[in-house]
Amino acid sequence: MAESMRVSVPQLEAFIARALEAVDIPAADARIIGELMTRADVQGSEGHGVFRLPQYVRRIKGGAVNTRPYIRVVRETPGMALVDGDNGMGHLVMRYATERAIAKAGDAGVAWVGVRSSNHAGPASLYAGMALEHDMIGLYLAVGNANHLPPWGGIDMLLSTNPIAVAIPAGEELNVVLDMATTVAAYGKVKTKAQRGESMPEGWMMDREGRPLTDPKRANEGFLLPIGGYKGYGLALVFGLLAGTLNGAAMGKDVVDFNADDTTPTNTGHVIVAINIENFLPVARFKASVDALVQDIRNSRPLPGVDHIRIPGDGTVAARLDRLENGIPLPPALLASLNQLAAELEIASVI
Amino acid sequence: MAESMRVSVPQLEAFIARALEAVDIPAADARIIGELMTRADVQGSEGHGVFRLPQYVRRIKGGAVNTRPYIRVVRETPGMALVDGDNGMGHLVMRYATERAIAKAGDAGVAWVGVRSSNHAGPASLYAGMALEHDMIGLYLAVGNANHLPPWGGIDMLLSTNPIAVAIPAGEELNVVLDMATTVAAYGKVKTKAQRGESMPEGWMMDREGRPLTDPKRANEGFLLPIGGYKGYGLALVFGLLAGTLNGAAMGKDVVDFNADDTTPTNTGHVIVAINIENFLPVARFKASVDALVQDIRNSRPLPGVDHIRIPGDGTVAARLDRLENGIPLPPALLASLNQLAAELEIASVI
Repeated sequence: MAESMRVSVPQLEAFIARALEAVDIPAADARIIGELMTRADVQGSEGHGVFRLPQYVRRIKGGAVNTRPYIRVVRETPGMALVDGDNGMGHLVMRYATERAIAKAGDAGVAWVGVRSSNHAGPASLYAGMALEHDMIGLYLAVGNANHLPPWGGIDMLLSTNPIAVAIPAGEELNVVLDMATTVAAYGKVKTKAQRGESMPEGWMMDREGRPLTDPKRANEGFLLPIGGYKGYGLALVFGLLAGTLNGAAMGKDVVDFNADDTTPTNTGHVIVAINIENFLPVARFKASVDALVQDIRNSRPLPGVDHIRIPGDGTVAARLDRLENGIPLPPALLASLNQLAAELEIASVI
Repeated sequence: MAESMRVSVPQLEAFIARALEAVDIPAADARIIGELMTRADVQGSEGHGVFRLPQYVRRIKGGAVNTRPYIRVVRETPGMALVDGDNGMGHLVMRYATERAIAKAGDAGVAWVGVRSSNHAGPASLYAGMALEHDMIGLYLAVGNANHLPPWGGIDMLLSTNPIAVAIPAGEELNVVLDMATTVAAYGKVKTKAQRGESMPEGWMMDREGRPLTDPKRANEGFLLPIGGYKGYGLALVFGLLAGTLNGAAMGKDVVDFNADDTTPTNTGHVIVAINIENFLPVARFKASVDALVQDIRNSRPLPGVDHIRIPGDGTVAARLDRLENGIPLPPALLASLNQLAAELEIASVI
């Protein structure tokens, strides 16, 4: 496999902004989206960063996304708000909603902000993580933008891999940042296996007869499996009801497959909850308790063959250190697709 | 296996109240606890109902639980409250906290109520479900009262099977009520397998060498496995930080094993969130959307060999219909333990 090209954070941010400006996103918005998408790549969420740019551009060109959205709060009480994203880019909508949640939690202690008429917004932890610098806990739920999951015991893919992210600040230790789909594997991992010509472990997918499906090239003959069987199905269902149905956003058969469709608005729904720690107990005491727990876990005894015990979020910290030091890796196939995009849009390429 | 004796709801409620009064719980509180514990049995949560009564009585006699608690709100803002249960019976504490969350959500739209200094409170869905009759969604998290789960890759049991429950009202259809531990199997299921002399399927437990453990009689040589590997570990960790650490309640190595210890307060932590649907969209429209989704799922095509697709909560509805019609089943071993308890406390037996 050929080596990945490495690009710097400013190079990638600028390229994404150029591409989005070329399809009529205002310059200030394009910069914000470029910064957030690059942040996804910096934290190692490769499937949710610049990898998605050609698809975003395709959908903007197809008229599926509003480049001049009027993002606004349509309902509000002290403890909640409902944001209508006016079909704008998900990053803009979720940045707005998260800032609102954080501001409201400063007053109300906890604020729950639901979002409708949004779009794919990148990795879940991007928004949950925004609470951390305010000494708040962030909790994020979303309805995914393609249905790859049937109800447990069924074969009709009525659900997405509806994710959850929870970001919890530590003191001296690394923050605890969980970011997970409710399926054993995310669909992006299946695509990566196919690209590499590898087979999948049993437990990732099943075919319509209920047999394990391990050839990723046959992915369209089956579906993803939820974590813990009916439990992961239950989580995907209730997260979808909270992030989608409750906000008047798409859920179930109304979900638009944004990989296959370039013209239909997705009406994506999200939830961001901000929890102001100091309303519960002194922030320093909370962080010391998190530190102690994290240390107990890190210092606990591993199974034979396991080097060390990990805390959710460790992987993104390691990725961030590497990317900030060495640049963001762009594998050859991704670089080629970005160069092709640059040519189509008649803009300077990423490097 | 001998037939279970069936007792009526009033019979069981009265027996539980008699037993609790005999160990100095005030009559009004004993009635409330009896009603809530019986509700657990009625909905089929056998491991969380009257089955726990001898243990509760043992801990009350041992001085581990406060029979005259001053349950109160110690911190409050529009969107949250922190309740100190003063080491009272968990049912009393969680009933108080849930009523507070529902009242606050009526004003604030969404209300998050954290709880500390509580005790085991029965099944998670008992409290999430209280929101339903108010046209609210209920979300409940808790720290379990015994650590059976190591961090992923480890062998030291620093975590409990920290559960989540989410109750969402439907219109014509049955409500959606998810109630699950973050492990593949709850510890109670392991005990049941041992009692019946059956072996466990692979995936429930692992021994300290990382080998599957299928003999439930060897349960103390291993530990439970989280759903989805590191994902379930991550959920147990963040639910515990939210329900325990944030509230100043026990988490990690501070968790007291209430099965083995009759004298130490558990400082159990919970969270109950009430979400007032009408602040988001008209209740009738929300319920119609839930109905449509539930119907789509029920009518979707099953895998070969699967009779019908289930919705979370179906099992409790079936149990409730059976129990209200035929009474609550008390298996011989349980009935014997309740009769022994009655003799010890010098009260009339359950039947």
